[in-house]
Amino acid sequence: MHIGVVSLGLIGGSIARRLTEHGHQVTAWNPSPEVLEYARAFGINGAASVTQLCELEPDVLVLANPLRAMPTVIDQVAAAVRPGTVVTDVGSVKKPVARLARAAGLNSQFVGAHPMAGKELTGFAAADPQLLDGAHWALAVEDDTVAQNFLRIAQLVTGSLGGVVHAVDPGVHDEAAALISHVPHVLATELLNLVARTPVRELALQLAAGSFRDGTRVAHTDPRRTEAMVVENAAWVAPALRVVIRDLELLAEQLESNAAPVDFFDQAELLRQRGAAGSPSARDGATQLLDLSAENWRDLIRNATLTGAQVTAADAAAGTVTLLG
Amino acid sequence: MHIGVVSLGLIGGSIARRLTEHGHQVTAWNPSPEVLEYARAFGINGAASVTQLCELEPDVLVLANPLRAMPTVIDQVAAAVRPGTVVTDVGSVKKPVARLARAAGLNSQFVGAHPMAGKELTGFAAADPQLLDGAHWALAVEDDTVAQNFLRIAQLVTGSLGGVVHAVDPGVHDEAAALISHVPHVLATELLNLVARTPVRELALQLAAGSFRDGTRVAHTDPRRTEAMVVENAAWVAPALRVVIRDLELLAEQLESNAAPVDFFDQAELLRQRGAAGSPSARDGATQLLDLSAENWRDLIRNATLTGAQVTAADAAAGTVTLLG
Repeated sequence: MHIGVVSLGLIGGSIARRLTEHGHQVTAWNPSPEVLEYARAFGINGAASVTQLCELEPDVLVLANPLRAMPTVIDQVAAAVRPGTVVTDVGSVKKPVARLARAAGLNSQFVGAHPMAGKELTGFAAADPQLLDGAHWALAVEDDTVAQNFLRIAQLVTGSLGGVVHAVDPGVHDEAAALISHVPHVLATELLNLVARTPVRELALQLAAGSFRDGTRVAHTDPRRTEAMVVENAAWVAPALRVVIRDLELLAEQLESNAAPVDFFDQAELLRQRGAAGSPSARDGATQLLDLSAENWRDLIRNATLTGAQVTAADAAAGTVTLLG
Repeated sequence: MHIGVVSLGLIGGSIARRLTEHGHQVTAWNPSPEVLEYARAFGINGAASVTQLCELEPDVLVLANPLRAMPTVIDQVAAAVRPGTVVTDVGSVKKPVARLARAAGLNSQFVGAHPMAGKELTGFAAADPQLLDGAHWALAVEDDTVAQNFLRIAQLVTGSLGGVVHAVDPGVHDEAAALISHVPHVLATELLNLVARTPVRELALQLAAGSFRDGTRVAHTDPRRTEAMVVENAAWVAPALRVVIRDLELLAEQLESNAAPVDFFDQAELLRQRGAAGSPSARDGATQLLDLSAENWRDLIRNATLTGAQVTAADAAAGTVTLLG
């Protein structure tokens, strides 16, 4: 396949390098030409603009630019994209991006995606084809998503990109992402803020052990990127923060009145029993083949995802996906 | 030296095993005799009761029992301890334990301690002499702490136990511990609670990556132990939670009104620049020798600790400590 990549940052660069290693033709555009020049050494071709990249009519065009550039990039893509291209992205929120794509007229030519992968470094220099090994990808399934377009992206992700796919409504993705990524980033930042402001800061940092180190790790990543994720997903992050505030107020009141904390430390007992990862990564469920020519494939696959199923393989020619769990 | 240890859990067991390896005589008492029997294979002698252990007049008696047992244990110790023993503990809060010791009449014979070390497992089976390698220990210095008693514990910690010492007022320890341990435990628990309660739980767990895994790691430890730490230090945890609540409310309001989050993501910039650990572990400051026969040694050493200094060696015979940083 011929893959276009907009922006060679950590994720875009890792995707581009992995796909060239797997024999795909990759053409990229990046705002700074030095990066494109450097990427040439990895077999990645350069395009002079987003428009020129669209005009090459790649099979898949991956928008790997920062969220703040998304409105501009999507407008450029919508104006120049050819009918043979399926457009996807790697943004950390899916509903706002889907809304932008729809407003620009991309509609079902756009299948949004979000790979759950990252590290503390950014930029093409930190890109690593192995970063995406076994990554969990959310792939947006909207009410008008075209099966063949979904299959093209799902096949690329579960094939050359080495990931698994969770087919979700964009809003449901954003709800889940608020809970397992954006709120954790906010709380990590707040923990670091607390210590930054205290008069006993130097002693506190000296005594800090595992719980503080783990609890603040992601607060050390680029605060502008964290802020962008949180602001873009404000619709889900704000209500989740209200729940956190309510729960912490209840706990604080109990502590202040010397009452035993009721329930707070035991609510997650079932998750605790599942083990430290909290996630059943190797689901022992059977696999099934789902034929996406079925009228109700979108509901079938989204409902399966909500119970924890994942797409481990996709066959665009056969029109089927393999569902595990 | 002859060291007594009350309760062979993870920390007490690790201390006992490390000290026997370093040639000390170790006698322990534990509520379940099977553990004492098992510990014998590691060269640890058993005592039949706390009282009997006290009557052996060890040089140091380490109370490594859970916080909830502390009132009972301290009363037993106060009734039976001999004048030649310095009593210490390893509890995660220092002011409430100091208060118990004082109420029981132990006074300056008691020098409270808190090693910042742990892991997810508990019990003697998980004990590991290496667990304490390089651990940061808080050692309580109260207004009537006797220099020789402090030095005996500090020499043991910086010597055979392989740690460094931060000499602190018990209340200052508890304030710092709330920020770098207890509040992180509460927020980790709340993150797990959030996901445990959501209808999109299974999907969320499938998508969960580094930020959720790190942010909830300590929520997978024993919830009773976490609850005890938080409740015992309620005096500092509750006000810290009030600050967290205030900060999150401000952020939620900004997100709800589409206002740019002011300051939240940048407050900790100075800590961020210090690197991912957040802590200057290898302080490049010079070392100095502090003579604890000075009238104001308690203020000198506590003030130095507040600026980040640590005791790297102690010499009870000479009456001095080596301060780094």
